Amino acid sequence: MRTITWDPEIPVIRMIDQRLLPEELVFIDLHTPEAVASAIRQMSIRGAPAIGAAAAYGLALAGIQSIAQTSQALMRDLETAAELLQATRPTAKNLSWALNRLRKSALDSFEDGPETMRQRMVEEAQLLADEDVEINQRIGEYGSSLIQDGDQVIHHCNTGALATVDYGTALGVIRTAHEQGKRVHVLVDETRPRLQGSRLTAWELSQYGIPYEIISDNAAGYFLARGLVSAVFVGADRVAANGDVANKIGTYMLALAAKDNHVPLYCAVPTSTVDLEVSSGADIPIEERDPSEVLGLQIAGRITAPEGSSARNPAFDITPNRLITSFITEVGILPPPYTDTLANAVRKAQPR
Amino acid sequence: MRTITWDPEIPVIRMIDQRLLPEELVFIDLHTPEAVASAIRQMSIRGAPAIGAAAAYGLALAGIQSIAQTSQALMRDLETAAELLQATRPTAKNLSWALNRLRKSALDSFEDGPETMRQRMVEEAQLLADEDVEINQRIGEYGSSLIQDGDQVIHHCNTGALATVDYGTALGVIRTAHEQGKRVHVLVDETRPRLQGSRLTAWELSQYGIPYEIISDNAAGYFLARGLVSAVFVGADRVAANGDVANKIGTYMLALAAKDNHVPLYCAVPTSTVDLEVSSGADIPIEERDPSEVLGLQIAGRITAPEGSSARNPAFDITPNRLITSFITEVGILPPPYTDTLANAVRKAQPR
Repeated sequence: MRTITWDPEIPVIRMIDQRLLPEELVFIDLHTPEAVASAIRQMSIRGAPAIGAAAAYGLALAGIQSIAQTSQALMRDLETAAELLQATRPTAKNLSWALNRLRKSALDSFEDGPETMRQRMVEEAQLLADEDVEINQRIGEYGSSLIQDGDQVIHHCNTGALATVDYGTALGVIRTAHEQGKRVHVLVDETRPRLQGSRLTAWELSQYGIPYEIISDNAAGYFLARGLVSAVFVGADRVAANGDVANKIGTYMLALAAKDNHVPLYCAVPTSTVDLEVSSGADIPIEERDPSEVLGLQIAGRITAPEGSSARNPAFDITPNRLITSFITEVGILPPPYTDTLANAVRKAQPR
Repeated sequence: MRTITWDPEIPVIRMIDQRLLPEELVFIDLHTPEAVASAIRQMSIRGAPAIGAAAAYGLALAGIQSIAQTSQALMRDLETAAELLQATRPTAKNLSWALNRLRKSALDSFEDGPETMRQRMVEEAQLLADEDVEINQRIGEYGSSLIQDGDQVIHHCNTGALATVDYGTALGVIRTAHEQGKRVHVLVDETRPRLQGSRLTAWELSQYGIPYEIISDNAAGYFLARGLVSAVFVGADRVAANGDVANKIGTYMLALAAKDNHVPLYCAVPTSTVDLEVSSGADIPIEERDPSEVLGLQIAGRITAPEGSSARNPAFDITPNRLITSFITEVGILPPPYTDTLANAVRKAQPR
């Protein structure tokens, strides 16, 4: 069961509305690029690779729905849709990567006319989605060597099937180890403010039969300091050329706590998340989301912040490369120095 | 308005039920030591100094309600009540400190008979509560020198009037700076899982007219790394002889993030929180509370963890002394080495 699929008959993009989990598993149908953009913005779909696939499908849909009769007119319509989709969220690299890949597939068949371009874009979006699953499985295989039977690991945010087209990155590594018969226990960071850990990762783990316990993000240091954690696994929304990582808010503090206790922190990403044009984390734009995500909690039906309170809500932070033990990618496990190993990995992955 | 008071007429202990804030300000009357123990256990009252005062009043109440006709019989009844009160929560030093102080006041008047003992205990509990306010004001005065006009600071958990008899420790420092006319802006860690930051500290700051914004605990590192924070202020539930600090879960990770960015972290405590009999943080017992505190959240009426999930919920963690810039106490600001400066401070404070 994929997080996002394309139904060529209608055509329509079908995806899980992640805002309703774990209470309800509901699929929504998106008939326009505008609806896709809105689903990304409102986080019905989230997770860098899943956002990339959604944007790719969204641009293919824009191509189909364009009434352009020339290749040039179609490219103009695609550009408008790509801008709309690009503007939804600023941090994840996979969004621009997927849009660029779809743009290129259209341009490559420019001479063959708009109908061929439309067809090629749908094929390219499908290919991108299929490759995402395959890439994740390779990440899982490489990464599972880092998990031993009996390990307890910490996982932040959601990097599972829901964050990708299927299978997952960091959570895919844990899943592969489990499928290999290794006993692994997961401490699930709840991941404030949107609780992707307790809502989504816990839900996935319960589906897979992997034992877990939820912890508040600020408790990770307690378990690390007591020697109870073998490794920390995270994904990324964008990796700079030097290995600095933009990932879900809290990753930086988690990485500091891992480092302080000599516990390895692994960052599992497809190479499409690596942005070689950004030299360091300082140049990655960080999205700040609505304060209501921080203020909107209830405990037993009671409000948890005084009326009129304001909040700050950065959705990501930057973890400096010195805190990353290694990257797990579809072309292998990358040690430092990351300026070399990441560039090599991207080169190696591209001919695919 | 004190968090906890003694009404000698009935007699009764009256306290704010902190579980109902910020929605409602409700006072509850506690007529028995059992009711006081229950209020501490259920966190109607919390915060190390406030727990100390509650336990002192609770033991005084036990003395009054005992039907013992001899000093010896009264001491036996007091011992039973002290054990009940001591068993409520294991981490805060102030609990045993206050109970020992009340025990001593009873023993000191042992020769004068049970009626005098009862009277002395009520006086001692009142004195302890009055001194707590005075001590906090002195902490505020010393500590306010560490805040400059225009500073933005991070505060974890609640260390204000609600965590003490009145005024507060770390929050008292911020309050004093504000009262001195310094502009100070507070980033309030929401403090999962019980949200003492967004529920209690934000409420207090809004009462005092001090500007604040709430952040999720895992976002502190983001603001520290951007150079937006001048200092971090925390309290403590117990300080070991070497300066290791047991404080609300999350303090350790916050302290790591402060250190990584060369931002000072100050720990504001009355010397009654210092436990010279415990050599390091490894020997401080850490309470683990009910998983429902982690799992019991709702967003917009929806559950946030799958049915059947379990959680781990340590209420405190240990921050090693190397991460504490200095302690702010009622006898002054203490620099390292803490083994010396804490012992000196306790000696200096005791003759009071």
